[in-house]
Amino acid sequence: MWISELSGRSGVPIPTIKYYLRERLLDHGESVSATRSRYDERHVARLRLIRALVDVAGMSLERVREVLHHIDDESADLHSALGSAHELLSAEPDSDPSEASMDACSQMIADQGWQVSRQSRHRRALAAALDAMSDVGNPISPQTLRNYARAVDDIAAAELAGIPTGDRDVSATYMVTGTVLAEPVLLTLRRLAHENLSSRRFGHNGTVTPPPDDES
Amino acid sequence: MWISELSGRSGVPIPTIKYYLRERLLDHGESVSATRSRYDERHVARLRLIRALVDVAGMSLERVREVLHHIDDESADLHSALGSAHELLSAEPDSDPSEASMDACSQMIADQGWQVSRQSRHRRALAAALDAMSDVGNPISPQTLRNYARAVDDIAAAELAGIPTGDRDVSATYMVTGTVLAEPVLLTLRRLAHENLSSRRFGHNGTVTPPPDDES
Repeated sequence: MWISELSGRSGVPIPTIKYYLRERLLDHGESVSATRSRYDERHVARLRLIRALVDVAGMSLERVREVLHHIDDESADLHSALGSAHELLSAEPDSDPSEASMDACSQMIADQGWQVSRQSRHRRALAAALDAMSDVGNPISPQTLRNYARAVDDIAAAELAGIPTGDRDVSATYMVTGTVLAEPVLLTLRRLAHENLSSRRFGHNGTVTPPPDDES
Repeated sequence: MWISELSGRSGVPIPTIKYYLRERLLDHGESVSATRSRYDERHVARLRLIRALVDVAGMSLERVREVLHHIDDESADLHSALGSAHELLSAEPDSDPSEASMDACSQMIADQGWQVSRQSRHRRALAAALDAMSDVGNPISPQTLRNYARAVDDIAAAELAGIPTGDRDVSATYMVTGTVLAEPVLLTLRRLAHENLSSRRFGHNGTVTPPPDDES
Protein backbone atom coordinates (compact mmCIF):
# COMPACT_ATOMS: atom_id res chain seq x y z
CA MET A 1 0.00 0.00 0.00
CA TRP A 2 1.04 3.63 -0.50
CA ILE A 3 1.53 6.03 2.39
CA SER A 4 -1.99 7.49 1.93
CA GLU A 5 -3.58 4.08 2.50
CA LEU A 6 -1.22 3.43 5.42
CA SER A 7 -2.44 6.69 6.91
CA GLY A 8 -6.08 5.73 6.38
CA ARG A 9 -5.64 2.23 7.83
CA SER A 10 -3.68 3.33 10.92
CA GLY A 11 -5.45 6.63 11.53
CA VAL A 12 -2.08 8.40 11.69
CA PRO A 13 -1.74 11.56 9.53
CA ILE A 14 0.84 11.44 6.71
CA PRO A 15 3.10 14.18 8.19
CA THR A 16 3.24 12.22 11.47
CA ILE A 17 4.13 9.01 9.60
CA LYS A 18 6.94 10.88 7.81
CA TYR A 19 8.19 12.15 11.16
CA TYR A 20 8.23 8.61 12.59
CA LEU A 21 10.13 7.43 9.48
CA ARG A 22 12.75 10.16 9.96
CA GLU A 23 13.00 9.32 13.68
CA ARG A 24 13.40 5.62 12.73
CA LEU A 25 10.48 4.58 14.95
CA LEU A 26 8.96 3.11 11.78
CA ASP A 27 10.90 1.06 9.19
CA HIS A 28 11.15 2.50 5.70
CA GLY A 29 8.93 0.71 3.22
CA GLU A 30 9.99 -0.99 0.00
CA SER A 31 11.35 1.72 -2.29
CA VAL A 32 9.70 1.65 -5.72
CA SER A 33 10.99 5.00 -7.01
CA ALA A 34 12.99 7.94 -5.69
CA THR A 35 9.91 9.38 -4.03
CA ARG A 36 7.52 6.45 -3.50
CA SER A 37 7.61 3.48 -1.12
CA ARG A 38 5.27 0.59 -0.51
CA TYR A 39 4.14 -0.36 2.99
CA ASP A 40 2.56 -3.52 4.38
CA GLU A 41 0.60 -4.86 7.36
CA ARG A 42 3.64 -4.70 9.62
CA HIS A 43 3.68 -0.93 9.18
CA VAL A 44 0.00 -0.69 10.11
CA ALA A 45 0.61 -2.74 13.26
CA ARG A 46 3.67 -0.68 14.23
CA LEU A 47 1.81 2.62 13.79
CA ARG A 48 -1.06 1.36 15.95
CA LEU A 49 1.42 0.32 18.61
CA ILE A 50 3.14 3.73 18.57
CA ARG A 51 -0.22 5.50 18.87
CA ALA A 52 -1.24 3.21 21.76
CA LEU A 53 1.99 4.06 23.58
CA VAL A 54 1.64 7.79 22.96
CA ASP A 55 -2.12 8.31 23.23
CA VAL A 56 -3.05 5.58 25.70
CA ALA A 57 0.03 5.11 27.86
CA GLY A 58 0.93 8.81 27.60
CA MET A 59 4.57 8.07 26.77
CA SER A 60 7.12 10.46 25.32
CA LEU A 61 8.69 9.39 22.01
CA GLU A 62 11.89 8.67 23.92
CA ARG A 63 10.12 6.09 26.10
CA VAL A 64 8.31 4.75 23.02
CA ARG A 65 11.74 4.20 21.47
CA GLU A 66 12.79 2.16 24.54
CA VAL A 67 9.68 0.00 24.37
CA LEU A 68 10.12 -0.61 20.63
CA HIS A 69 13.74 -1.52 21.27
CA HIS A 70 12.60 -4.35 23.59
CA ILE A 71 9.91 -5.53 21.19
CA ASP A 72 12.36 -5.58 18.28
CA ASP A 73 15.03 -7.46 20.22
CA GLU A 74 15.07 -10.70 18.22
CA SER A 75 17.31 -12.38 20.81
CA ALA A 76 14.42 -12.23 23.31
CA ASP A 77 11.33 -14.41 22.94
CA LEU A 78 7.91 -12.79 22.64
CA HIS A 79 7.12 -12.93 26.34
CA SER A 80 10.46 -11.62 27.40
CA ALA A 81 9.98 -8.71 25.00
CA LEU A 82 6.45 -8.03 26.24
CA GLY A 83 7.61 -8.29 29.87
CA SER A 84 10.31 -5.67 29.34
CA ALA A 85 7.86 -3.38 27.54
CA HIS A 86 5.22 -3.89 30.27
CA GLU A 87 7.76 -2.86 32.90
CA LEU A 88 8.15 0.51 31.20
CA LEU A 89 4.43 1.27 31.62
CA SER A 90 5.07 2.20 35.26
CA ALA A 91 6.92 5.47 35.72
CA GLU A 92 9.78 5.67 38.18
CA PRO A 93 8.54 7.36 41.39
CA ASP A 94 9.67 10.99 41.79
CA SER A 95 11.51 10.12 44.98
CA ASP A 96 12.66 6.90 46.64
CA PRO A 97 9.80 5.08 48.37
CA SER A 98 10.19 4.56 52.13
CA GLU A 99 11.86 1.42 53.40
CA ALA A 100 8.70 0.56 55.37
CA SER A 101 6.60 0.54 52.20
CA MET A 102 9.20 -1.40 50.23
CA ASP A 103 9.19 -3.97 53.07
CA ALA A 104 5.38 -4.12 53.02
CA CYS A 105 5.53 -4.83 49.27
CA SER A 106 8.12 -7.56 49.75
CA GLN A 107 6.04 -9.15 52.49
CA MET A 108 2.89 -9.10 50.34
CA ILE A 109 4.82 -10.52 47.36
CA ALA A 110 6.21 -13.31 49.56
CA ASP A 111 2.74 -14.04 51.02
CA GLN A 112 1.28 -14.26 47.52
CA GLY A 113 4.18 -16.36 46.29
CA TRP A 114 4.60 -13.96 43.38
CA GLN A 115 7.72 -14.08 41.23
CA VAL A 116 8.63 -10.51 40.46
CA SER A 117 12.00 -8.91 39.99
CA ARG A 118 13.51 -7.10 42.97
CA GLN A 119 14.20 -4.16 40.64
CA SER A 120 10.67 -4.13 39.25
CA ARG A 121 9.41 -0.63 38.54
CA HIS A 122 5.92 -1.79 39.47
CA ARG A 123 7.18 -2.74 42.91
CA ARG A 124 8.65 0.72 43.46
CA ALA A 125 5.52 2.38 42.09
CA LEU A 126 3.40 0.34 44.52
CA ALA A 127 5.60 1.34 47.46
CA ALA A 128 5.26 5.01 46.43
CA ALA A 129 1.46 4.62 46.30
CA LEU A 130 1.49 3.10 49.82
CA ASP A 131 3.59 6.05 51.02
CA ALA A 132 1.00 8.48 49.63
CA MET A 133 -1.73 6.82 51.74
CA SER A 134 0.41 6.86 54.89
CA ASP A 135 1.27 10.53 54.30
CA VAL A 136 -2.40 11.53 54.60
CA GLY A 137 -2.89 9.44 57.74
CA ASN A 138 -4.84 6.67 56.01
CA PRO A 139 -2.26 3.85 55.69
CA ILE A 140 -3.18 0.54 54.05
CA SER A 141 -2.93 -2.38 56.46
CA PRO A 142 -1.05 -5.55 55.45
CA GLN A 143 -4.40 -7.35 55.57
CA THR A 144 -6.03 -4.91 53.13
CA LEU A 145 -3.01 -5.11 50.83
CA ARG A 146 -3.31 -8.90 50.82
CA ASN A 147 -7.03 -8.67 50.01
CA TYR A 148 -6.32 -6.29 47.15
CA ALA A 149 -3.57 -8.57 45.85
CA ARG A 150 -5.85 -11.61 45.86
CA ALA A 151 -8.58 -9.74 44.00
CA VAL A 152 -6.28 -8.44 41.26
CA ASP A 153 -4.60 -11.84 40.92
CA ASP A 154 -7.89 -13.30 39.71
CA ILE A 155 -8.37 -10.40 37.32
CA ALA A 156 -4.85 -10.64 35.92
CA ALA A 157 -5.02 -14.39 35.30
CA ALA A 158 -8.03 -13.97 33.02
CA GLU A 159 -6.41 -11.04 31.24
CA LEU A 160 -3.12 -12.75 30.47
CA ALA A 161 -4.93 -15.72 28.95
CA GLY A 162 -6.30 -13.49 26.19
CA ILE A 163 -3.07 -12.09 24.71
CA PRO A 164 -2.73 -12.92 20.99
CA THR A 165 0.66 -14.42 20.16
CA GLY A 166 1.07 -13.96 16.42
CA ASP A 167 2.67 -10.68 15.36
CA ARG A 168 4.84 -9.00 18.03
CA ASP A 169 3.45 -5.53 17.41
CA VAL A 170 -0.13 -6.79 17.57
CA SER A 171 0.62 -8.59 20.86
CA ALA A 172 2.33 -5.51 22.28
CA THR A 173 -0.54 -3.22 21.25
CA TYR A 174 -2.97 -5.58 22.96
CA MET A 175 -0.81 -5.63 26.07
CA VAL A 176 -0.50 -1.82 26.24
CA THR A 177 -4.17 -1.09 25.62
CA GLY A 178 -5.29 -3.99 27.83
CA THR A 179 -3.10 -2.84 30.69
CA VAL A 180 -3.56 0.92 30.51
CA LEU A 181 -7.04 1.39 29.04
CA ALA A 182 -8.60 -1.23 31.29
CA GLU A 183 -7.45 0.74 34.35
CA PRO A 184 -10.19 3.40 34.22
CA VAL A 185 -12.68 0.55 33.71
CA LEU A 186 -11.58 -1.09 36.95
CA LEU A 187 -11.50 2.16 38.87
CA THR A 188 -14.94 3.33 37.81
CA LEU A 189 -16.32 -0.15 38.55
CA ARG A 190 -14.92 0.14 42.06
CA ARG A 191 -16.59 3.53 42.48
CA LEU A 192 -19.88 2.07 41.25
CA ALA A 193 -19.48 -0.80 43.71
CA HIS A 194 -19.02 1.77 46.49
CA GLU A 195 -22.16 3.56 45.34
CA ASN A 196 -24.13 0.32 45.34
CA LEU A 197 -22.93 -0.82 48.76
CA SER A 198 -23.47 2.57 50.31
CA SER A 199 -26.93 2.77 48.79
CA ARG A 200 -27.85 -0.71 50.04
CA ARG A 201 -26.47 -0.22 53.46
CA PHE A 202 -27.62 3.32 54.14
CA GLY A 203 -30.28 3.95 51.50
CA HIS A 204 -28.66 7.33 51.04
CA ASN A 205 -29.76 7.94 47.48
CA GLY A 206 -33.32 9.12 46.96
CA THR A 207 -33.40 7.87 43.37
CA VAL A 208 -32.82 4.19 44.16
CA THR A 209 -35.36 1.62 45.26
CA PRO A 210 -34.68 0.38 48.79
CA PRO A 211 -34.01 -3.36 49.04
CA PRO A 212 -37.22 -5.36 49.62
CA ASP A 213 -36.33 -6.23 53.20
CA ASP A 214 -35.70 -2.61 54.15
CA GLU A 215 -38.79 -0.47 54.59
CA SER A 216 -37.06 2.44 56.32
CA MET B 1 -5.82 27.59 68.88
CA TRP B 2 -4.49 30.58 66.94
CA ILE B 3 -4.10 30.57 63.17
CA SER B 4 -0.38 29.72 63.45
CA GLU B 5 -1.16 26.49 65.32
CA LEU B 6 -3.98 25.72 62.90
CA SER B 7 -1.47 26.07 60.08
CA GLY B 8 1.00 23.77 61.85
CA ARG B 9 -1.62 21.14 62.67
CA SER B 10 -3.17 21.06 59.19
CA GLY B 11 -0.01 21.61 57.15
CA VAL B 12 -1.73 24.45 55.28
CA PRO B 13 0.22 27.76 55.06
CA ILE B 14 -1.35 30.80 56.77
CA PRO B 15 -1.89 32.79 53.53
CA THR B 16 -3.77 29.81 52.07
CA ILE B 17 -5.91 29.53 55.22
CA LYS B 18 -6.73 33.25 54.91
CA TYR B 19 -7.68 32.72 51.28
CA TYR B 20 -10.02 29.83 52.22
CA LEU B 21 -11.58 32.05 54.93
CA ARG B 22 -12.22 34.84 52.40
CA GLU B 23 -13.65 32.30 49.93
CA ARG B 24 -15.87 30.94 52.73
CA LEU B 25 -14.57 27.37 52.22
CA LEU B 26 -13.58 27.52 55.89
CA ASP B 27 -15.74 28.94 58.69
CA HIS B 28 -14.45 31.95 60.55
CA GLY B 29 -13.18 31.13 64.02
CA GLU B 30 -14.35 32.60 67.29
CA SER B 31 -13.47 36.30 67.22
CA VAL B 32 -11.49 37.36 70.32
CA SER B 33 -10.37 40.79 69.11
CA ALA B 34 -10.58 42.87 65.94
CA THR B 35 -7.63 40.99 64.43
CA ARG B 36 -7.50 37.62 66.25
CA SER B 37 -9.70 34.55 66.08
CA ARG B 38 -9.60 31.21 67.78
CA TYR B 39 -9.93 27.95 65.83
CA ASP B 40 -10.73 24.40 66.91
CA GLU B 41 -10.53 20.77 65.79
CA ARG B 42 -13.31 21.25 63.25
CA HIS B 43 -11.12 23.74 61.42
CA VAL B 44 -8.24 21.26 61.35
CA ALA B 45 -10.51 18.55 59.93
CA ARG B 46 -11.98 20.91 57.33
CA LEU B 47 -8.54 22.03 56.15
CA ARG B 48 -7.38 18.42 55.82
CA LEU B 49 -10.48 17.65 53.79
CA ILE B 50 -9.93 20.61 51.46
CA ARG B 51 -6.30 19.58 50.93
CA ALA B 52 -7.35 15.98 50.20
CA LEU B 53 -9.83 17.22 47.60
CA VAL B 54 -7.31 19.55 45.97
CA ASP B 55 -4.07 17.59 46.27
CA VAL B 56 -5.36 14.02 46.13
CA ALA B 57 -8.53 14.19 44.04
CA GLY B 58 -7.11 17.02 41.91
CA MET B 59 -10.25 19.14 42.20
CA SER B 60 -10.64 22.82 41.39
CA LEU B 61 -11.83 25.02 44.26
CA GLU B 62 -15.18 25.30 42.50
CA ARG B 63 -15.67 21.53 42.69
CA VAL B 64 -14.37 21.53 46.27
CA ARG B 65 -17.10 24.04 47.07
CA GLU B 66 -19.72 21.65 45.62
CA VAL B 67 -18.42 18.74 47.69
CA LEU B 68 -18.37 20.83 50.87
CA HIS B 69 -21.90 21.97 50.12
CA HIS B 70 -23.07 18.33 50.20
CA ILE B 71 -21.10 17.53 53.35
CA ASP B 72 -22.51 20.58 55.13
CA ASP B 73 -26.09 19.84 54.14
CA GLU B 74 -27.55 19.15 57.57
CA SER B 75 -30.81 17.93 56.04
CA ALA B 76 -28.93 14.91 54.64
CA ASP B 77 -27.64 12.14 56.87
CA LEU B 78 -23.92 11.32 56.88
CA HIS B 79 -24.11 8.62 54.24
CA SER B 80 -26.26 10.66 51.94
CA ALA B 81 -23.74 13.48 52.22
CA LEU B 82 -20.79 11.16 51.60
CA GLY B 83 -22.60 9.55 48.66
CA SER B 84 -23.16 12.91 46.97
CA ALA B 85 -19.54 13.89 47.56
CA HIS B 86 -18.29 10.51 46.28
CA GLU B 87 -20.27 11.01 43.09
CA LEU B 88 -18.30 14.18 42.37
CA LEU B 89 -15.01 12.27 42.39
CA SER B 90 -15.72 11.03 38.85
CA ALA B 91 -15.44 13.72 36.20
CA GLU B 92 -18.13 14.03 33.55
CA PRO B 93 -16.84 12.42 30.30
CA ASP B 94 -15.77 14.94 27.62
CA SER B 95 -18.39 13.61 25.24
CA ASP B 96 -21.48 11.45 25.59
CA PRO B 97 -20.62 7.75 25.91
CA SER B 98 -22.02 5.47 23.18
CA GLU B 99 -25.41 3.87 23.66
CA ALA B 100 -23.80 0.42 23.30
CA SER B 101 -21.48 1.06 26.24
CA MET B 102 -24.25 2.58 28.36
CA ASP B 103 -26.28 -0.57 27.64
CA ALA B 104 -23.33 -2.80 28.56
CA CYS B 105 -23.07 -0.94 31.89
CA SER B 106 -26.78 -1.31 32.56
CA GLN B 107 -26.59 -5.03 31.79
CA MET B 108 -23.63 -5.53 34.11
CA ILE B 109 -25.32 -3.51 36.87
CA ALA B 110 -28.49 -5.62 36.48
CA ASP B 111 -26.46 -8.87 36.50
CA GLN B 112 -24.68 -7.78 39.67
CA GLY B 113 -27.92 -6.62 41.25
CA TRP B 114 -26.27 -3.29 42.02
CA GLN B 115 -28.36 -0.33 43.13
CA VAL B 116 -26.89 2.70 41.45
CA SER B 117 -28.56 5.82 40.17
CA ARG B 118 -29.35 5.98 36.44
CA GLN B 119 -27.76 9.44 36.41
CA SER B 120 -24.63 8.25 38.24
CA ARG B 121 -21.48 9.97 37.02
CA HIS B 122 -19.56 6.77 37.71
CA ARG B 123 -21.84 4.93 35.30
CA ARG B 124 -21.15 7.45 32.54
CA ALA B 125 -17.43 7.42 33.29
CA LEU B 126 -17.42 3.61 33.04
CA ALA B 127 -19.21 3.73 29.68
CA ALA B 128 -16.65 6.26 28.42
CA ALA B 129 -13.82 3.93 29.55
CA LEU B 130 -15.45 1.02 27.68
CA ASP B 131 -15.69 3.21 24.57
CA ALA B 132 -11.97 3.95 24.77
CA MET B 133 -11.19 0.21 24.67
CA SER B 134 -13.54 -0.39 21.73
CA ASP B 135 -12.02 2.55 19.87
CA VAL B 136 -8.60 0.88 19.81
CA GLY B 137 -10.06 -2.45 18.68
CA ASN B 138 -9.71 -4.14 22.08
CA PRO B 139 -13.29 -4.13 23.43
CA ILE B 140 -14.09 -5.60 26.84
CA SER B 141 -16.47 -8.55 26.61
CA PRO B 142 -19.55 -8.72 28.87
CA GLN B 143 -17.93 -11.75 30.53
CA THR B 144 -14.74 -9.82 31.36
CA LEU B 145 -16.76 -6.88 32.63
CA ARG B 146 -18.69 -9.24 34.92
CA ASN B 147 -15.43 -10.74 36.20
CA TYR B 148 -14.03 -7.29 36.92
CA ALA B 149 -17.25 -6.28 38.68
CA ARG B 150 -17.15 -9.35 40.92
CA ALA B 151 -13.53 -8.74 41.85
CA VAL B 152 -14.05 -5.08 42.76
CA ASP B 153 -17.23 -5.89 44.66
CA ASP B 154 -15.19 -7.92 47.15
CA ILE B 155 -12.67 -5.11 47.44
CA ALA B 156 -15.32 -2.43 47.94
CA ALA B 157 -17.17 -4.33 50.64
CA ALA B 158 -14.06 -4.47 52.81
CA GLU B 159 -13.31 -0.80 52.15
CA LEU B 160 -16.72 0.53 53.07
CA ALA B 161 -16.67 -1.33 56.37
CA GLY B 162 -13.71 0.80 57.51
CA ILE B 163 -15.19 4.31 57.18
CA PRO B 164 -15.17 6.20 60.50
CA THR B 165 -18.56 7.71 61.30
CA GLY B 166 -17.85 10.42 63.88
CA ASP B 167 -17.06 13.85 62.47
CA ARG B 168 -18.38 14.48 58.94
CA ASP B 169 -15.17 16.08 57.69
CA VAL B 170 -13.07 13.23 59.08
CA SER B 171 -15.35 10.68 57.38
CA ALA B 172 -15.24 12.61 54.11
CA THR B 173 -11.45 12.92 54.18
CA TYR B 174 -11.20 9.17 54.75
CA MET B 175 -13.60 8.55 51.87
CA VAL B 176 -11.71 10.83 49.47
CA THR B 177 -8.25 9.53 50.28
CA GLY B 178 -9.45 5.92 50.47
CA THR B 179 -11.15 6.15 47.10
CA VAL B 180 -8.62 8.17 45.15
CA LEU B 181 -5.27 7.32 46.75
CA ALA B 182 -6.00 3.59 46.84
CA GLU B 183 -6.45 3.60 43.07
CA PRO B 184 -2.72 3.65 42.20
CA VAL B 185 -2.26 0.88 44.78
CA LEU B 186 -4.75 -1.34 42.97
CA LEU B 187 -3.37 -0.53 39.53
CA THR B 188 0.26 -1.19 40.40
CA LEU B 189 -0.79 -4.42 42.16
CA ARG B 190 -2.46 -5.52 38.95
CA ARG B 191 0.71 -4.75 36.99
CA LEU B 192 2.75 -6.74 39.51
CA ALA B 193 0.27 -9.62 39.18
CA HIS B 194 0.79 -9.49 35.39
CA GLU B 195 4.53 -9.57 35.90
CA ASN B 196 4.26 -12.57 38.22
CA LEU B 197 1.94 -14.54 35.94
CA SER B 198 3.98 -13.79 32.86
CA SER B 199 7.16 -14.75 34.67
CA ARG B 200 5.64 -18.02 35.91
CA ARG B 201 4.09 -18.96 32.65
CA PHE B 202 6.86 -17.98 30.29
CA GLY B 203 9.91 -17.60 32.54
CA HIS B 204 10.65 -14.45 30.57
CA ASN B 205 12.65 -12.70 33.22
CA GLY B 206 16.27 -13.78 33.66
CA THR B 207 16.32 -12.61 37.27
CA VAL B 208 13.56 -14.92 38.54
CA THR B 209 13.82 -18.54 39.56
CA PRO B 210 11.83 -20.85 37.28
CA PRO B 211 9.08 -22.81 39.03
CA PRO B 212 10.36 -26.20 40.31
CA ASP B 213 8.40 -28.24 37.76
CA ASP B 214 9.79 -26.27 34.82
CA GLU B 215 13.37 -27.08 33.86
CA SER B 216 13.31 -25.33 30.47
